[in-house]
Amino acid sequence: MAHKANKVVIITEKLILEKVTQLIEANGGKGYTVVAAGGKGGRSTHPTGRATVVDAFGNVKIEVITARRDTANRIADEVARAFFGDYSGITYFEEVEVLRPEKF
Amino acid sequence: MAHKANKVVIITEKLILEKVTQLIEANGGKGYTVVAAGGKGGRSTHPTGRATVVDAFGNVKIEVITARRDTANRIADEVARAFFGDYSGITYFEEVEVLRPEKF
Amino acid sequence: MAHKANKVVIITEKLILEKVTQLIEANGGKGYTVVAAGGKGGRSTHPTGRATVVDAFGNVKIEVITARRDTANRIADEVARAFFGDYSGITYFEEVEVLRPEKF
Repeated sequence: MAHKANKVVIITEKLILEKVTQLIEANGGKGYTVVAAGGKGGRSTHPTGRATVVDAFGNVKIEVITARRDTANRIADEVARAFFGDYSGITYFEEVEVLRPEKF
Repeated sequence: MAHKANKVVIITEKLILEKVTQLIEANGGKGYTVVAAGGKGGRSTHPTGRATVVDAFGNVKIEVITARRDTANRIADEVARAFFGDYSGITYFEEVEVLRPEKF
Repeated sequence: MAHKANKVVIITEKLILEKVTQLIEANGGKGYTVVAAGGKGGRSTHPTGRATVVDAFGNVKIEVITARRDTANRIADEVARAFFGDYSGITYFEEVEVLRPEKF
């Protein structure tokens, strides 16, 4: 019996990985998965002249599954607010199904 | 013309990767994708005292796309039954669309 | 306020990564994420006798998020047409939600 749950995906700079995951846990995320990522985002340039989002390997893709949508929203909002003024990053949501929602 | 299909995601310990992919194929999975993963799952500790799920790099994220949902369910059930008593791991499902369902 | 958007996933051989991402951008993709991938696809063998899709590490998983579905379709079609006669690869679609659709 599968239950709907939410996945928040955060793609950002590797150098802030630890701070981001601390914020994920502080906002209700019970776990997360990290993979090394590269890529390119022609979306914006920072006022500081720093490179745009995911311009080279050295980025990370962080995934957090939450049973509640409001937890997913809060994690995305707090990460964006804390880091995406100074660091490149994007967040998005996916709907998933889990077998044991009490784990998430 | 896109067709609905199913993705099973399995995140577990790298050391059982080969056994897991053998079980995926034995249960009808026609292919799979593997990426190296790290992360943290504060979900449980094993009776053996082994680390919780995805506590460090050295894990893998395995994705299997299946045309039929019952194949996806069977793969998830069999992997959990065979390995998640002794090894850390989670599974979840996503809905995807494929162009050539006969490949999956 | 989240908005529906589309993710195109392309899994193919690493050696054509640069050509694929050029084609993604030429067809309206504003950014992409790349992760190293392995795996196995028992789906076909090439007339050249080359290995089937994702048979070993040395493949890549490329993800592109687009606000418009027709952009997603065009990227998948053009990549398959340009490369999948000669190189192994699969594409599929996922529905996602983004907070700032103007970025994609």
